[in-house]
Amino acid sequence: MDEVKVIEIKKSVFAENEKDADMLRSELKAKGVFLLNLMSAPGSGKTSTLIQLINRIKDKVRVAVMEADIDSDVDARKIKEKTGAPSIQLHTGGMCHLDAEMTRQGLDNVPLDDLDLVILENVGNLVCPAEFDTGATCNAMILSVPEGDDKPLKYPLMFTVCDLVIINKMDVVPYFDFDIERCKKYIHLRNPETQIIPISAKTGHGIDHLAEWLLKQLP
Amino acid sequence: MDEVKVIEIKKSVFAENEKDADMLRSELKAKGVFLLNLMSAPGSGKTSTLIQLINRIKDKVRVAVMEADIDSDVDARKIKEKTGAPSIQLHTGGMCHLDAEMTRQGLDNVPLDDLDLVILENVGNLVCPAEFDTGATCNAMILSVPEGDDKPLKYPLMFTVCDLVIINKMDVVPYFDFDIERCKKYIHLRNPETQIIPISAKTGHGIDHLAEWLLKQLP
Repeated sequence: MDEVKVIEIKKSVFAENEKDADMLRSELKAKGVFLLNLMSAPGSGKTSTLIQLINRIKDKVRVAVMEADIDSDVDARKIKEKTGAPSIQLHTGGMCHLDAEMTRQGLDNVPLDDLDLVILENVGNLVCPAEFDTGATCNAMILSVPEGDDKPLKYPLMFTVCDLVIINKMDVVPYFDFDIERCKKYIHLRNPETQIIPISAKTGHGIDHLAEWLLKQLP
Repeated sequence: MDEVKVIEIKKSVFAENEKDADMLRSELKAKGVFLLNLMSAPGSGKTSTLIQLINRIKDKVRVAVMEADIDSDVDARKIKEKTGAPSIQLHTGGMCHLDAEMTRQGLDNVPLDDLDLVILENVGNLVCPAEFDTGATCNAMILSVPEGDDKPLKYPLMFTVCDLVIINKMDVVPYFDFDIERCKKYIHLRNPETQIIPISAKTGHGIDHLAEWLLKQLP
């Protein structure tokens, strides 16, 4: 497989992450770059969703991906191989989230002037990434059907901070006790404004809707 | 449903968690209490596995459960209702893990003198709980089939610190690209000593094996 650039992320030295995140957001806006922060639990299908999504939009926008992981570079290689989009791997060295300064360390390694959209695949974790503003233009998360429809009750902050919840693995609904209407109700208890898009990264169901929604958000 | 005791866990003040964890482990050993720390990603089926397991062992050992969650008390109520075992809910107030001192705050609320086994259901998270020794006698985790067989590559520390990996949701293997032999190989790369037990908390498959293994560990 192709070689990918691996960046070892250093622990942030900034005490005031919120200020730093606002500053990063302004800089990206001035450059016309939209930064999507994609979060989820481990194994919910972030990478396979991105492959489907990027293949739908790559002729319309210039997109790059930053894959954050504690270890390994399998995700960045997969994205590069299956979509052709520039993709780098961010190693967090055991850290469970990214903040704005860590995100900036990644952005320093992508050609921002030639991009419309950067997608940050955050560390697989429903707790800590929700607490740290990365400076992203938009927060999105994936909840997958096998995880259960009660997750918004248990991980309230994650669902509160997201502008978009993608419900993935809709193809296996028949094999799980997952009620999509109940799930939508719980999500909207946390954030009534959240957009909810059900998909299956395996079958491609819903990906057109997701691509359309994302393209509409871009400047 | 029944009322359950909810404990609001306070942030730990101890700087040296490892020493504190060793001390807690010794105290529990002196009392003849086995503390099982059960970890996993969100939605892997910790609570439903515990319900099956406790119903298999509750006539042989005196068991209580501590359910850690950021919010909600649904898990503790479910355990109490479906097994009759004493169960308390620990609210972590947003914290993504438990350390030894926080575990002790929970243990102060269960009748240790009348128990053989306490099961701590840790916060659903594959990153942070692995970094903090809770003082448990044994670390176990659940990996569920829909999460994928590559998780030991991405969350190395979690698989390294566990004495037991339970592979749950074996009933849905036909609908996912999950290779159990590959998964076992990856787990043993991280920790060659780890015991691996495949189960389905839904069908009951493998629960007898799990119960037998656990009972053998008890003093």
